[in-house]
Amino acid sequence: MNTDDAPRVTITAIAREAGVSVPTVSRVLNGRSDVAPGTRERVEELLRHHGYRRRGSRTVRRAELVDLVFNDLDSPWAVEIIRGVEDVGHAAGVGTVVSAIHSESTSTRKWLQNLRSRASDGVIVVTSHLTPPVHAQLRRLNVPVVVVDPATGVPGTDVPAIGATNWAGGLAATEHLLELGHRRIGFVAGPTHLLCSRARLDGYRAALEAAGVPLDDRLVQPGDFYHASGFTAGSRLLDLDDPPTAIFAASDQMAFGVYEAVRRRGLRVADDVSVVGFDDLPEARWASPPLTTVRQPLVEMGRLAARTVLRLAQGEETESLRVELATELVVRDSSARPAAG
Amino acid sequence: MNTDDAPRVTITAIAREAGVSVPTVSRVLNGRSDVAPGTRERVEELLRHHGYRRRGSRTVRRAELVDLVFNDLDSPWAVEIIRGVEDVGHAAGVGTVVSAIHSESTSTRKWLQNLRSRASDGVIVVTSHLTPPVHAQLRRLNVPVVVVDPATGVPGTDVPAIGATNWAGGLAATEHLLELGHRRIGFVAGPTHLLCSRARLDGYRAALEAAGVPLDDRLVQPGDFYHASGFTAGSRLLDLDDPPTAIFAASDQMAFGVYEAVRRRGLRVADDVSVVGFDDLPEARWASPPLTTVRQPLVEMGRLAARTVLRLAQGEETESLRVELATELVVRDSSARPAAG
Repeated sequence: MNTDDAPRVTITAIAREAGVSVPTVSRVLNGRSDVAPGTRERVEELLRHHGYRRRGSRTVRRAELVDLVFNDLDSPWAVEIIRGVEDVGHAAGVGTVVSAIHSESTSTRKWLQNLRSRASDGVIVVTSHLTPPVHAQLRRLNVPVVVVDPATGVPGTDVPAIGATNWAGGLAATEHLLELGHRRIGFVAGPTHLLCSRARLDGYRAALEAAGVPLDDRLVQPGDFYHASGFTAGSRLLDLDDPPTAIFAASDQMAFGVYEAVRRRGLRVADDVSVVGFDDLPEARWASPPLTTVRQPLVEMGRLAARTVLRLAQGEETESLRVELATELVVRDSSARPAAG
Repeated sequence: MNTDDAPRVTITAIAREAGVSVPTVSRVLNGRSDVAPGTRERVEELLRHHGYRRRGSRTVRRAELVDLVFNDLDSPWAVEIIRGVEDVGHAAGVGTVVSAIHSESTSTRKWLQNLRSRASDGVIVVTSHLTPPVHAQLRRLNVPVVVVDPATGVPGTDVPAIGATNWAGGLAATEHLLELGHRRIGFVAGPTHLLCSRARLDGYRAALEAAGVPLDDRLVQPGDFYHASGFTAGSRLLDLDDPPTAIFAASDQMAFGVYEAVRRRGLRVADDVSVVGFDDLPEARWASPPLTTVRQPLVEMGRLAARTVLRLAQGEETESLRVELATELVVRDSSARPAAG
């Protein structure tokens, strides 16, 4: 008797139903390019329909490996997510294979090749862009995929995704500054094409509106989440005729850039200008003064991604395709009441 | 004909020579504990003597995996080393499996178990302490091992190790401050049981001696490389009756702690007190002011470790058991001439 609860479909049966040879079905399963597009589509449709599970992958032999893929490993939050995934993987006896694909197609192709040659129980992609071709390849390999995405708000695919509550975080940070008595609050935005940036900005606007503080477009400066853009935006804000008494940056790194803009003007963070960030990287605690910021639970996001992908690897379902973990305001020494006068 | 240049010894031959059964040799190879110590020793000696290579490990089947093991993933330089190893691994089609063992024996045992169950082409250990029992277990698994160690100076074993020139770095940082005109230079030390800490301190002393500046023990404060100890040590130095005009901390994190001690006293880094660190973490560039520091080439150390372990996995030899990559002084804005008066 089969211990699985569903009967298994074979490659031979799929080939017969699709009207193609067994080697053709194998070629589709192995992601090879020497298959006519129409044939590939028909075979993939049947594989999906019958819930075909590849031998040598998840049910038959466990690879005891989970792949964790970043665009780049220089994102300061990369190691936080690695910690979360490794923690769960280690406990489950599963190794965490870390890769960086640098948004390059050659690098991505190489990674997919490596993945094919050694098998993996699941893939966690940490990136704003799981491109449709990569997604299609992973689907062909029949490996479960989870997206961890502290950057975009909503993924464009039907893949389970784990993010954070960006709007609520933007709201909480701005409310904190309003409660301290600030009325002119600058905002350094993230890249506008990312939903998370728009959500943080909208949280900032919603808090101001609720407090009856009029919006001033000059107080919103563009940024790209990196340090240099925070320095430029902070400099522009501080050089206004009527500069803000507080600046909320949509990432910790940009907040550190604002610190430097404040210092270069002979001013002091907190005493002269309050600064709030977003992320709560370990560096936020070590900054001088320690940074008030909105915490993204990056380690927990990594943990949840690992648990989800391991469940999918065992053929279980996820409750939801979209999980947003709560952000939390962490008040430290960079925010204070506005200086009198 | 065999393509290997040396004839292969079999388990049967080893068993015959040792006067034990074949399953006993297997148990030794698998690191099982149910073998009498004397027997284990005799069998291991013969395995080494004949250069036995385990089937299913390096020569017969490549696992296409390299293991990279940290004590903890919260060391701020962990991600730098991961970047270097991943870079070389990716190019070679080898996945980088990242683990943290938290210096716990249960965690280490679990990791060794996982390693046994899925095989690995080589292990890179990033830690001050490759304990003799772990080393013995790895030897039994016949997996090549390389130590990357930005912390200790010299490993206690015959394993290839990659470090950095700590004494030269300590010398260069102190000479830089002397050249700026500082005469009272404080030093925040790392843990004294680590050779690298002693090398950095000796570099500091050597520079002072060469410049004819008398040593003052009160100017050397203990630390543990972490932020809080830098804050405490910096506070003590600044509270001296005759405080230093410059402070050299033996890690970037401790230098950031000194920043905070400076700020809390209403003073300014560079203008009032020069600060120099050691590591050149990415955070050093983002600090306010950007930190003058001694660069450890962490990414390059990771790259070299990966190349070395992959060469060992192919049966090649290393030229040297001990490689020290050069450190380099990076001058930024936290060091300046001493304030007049």
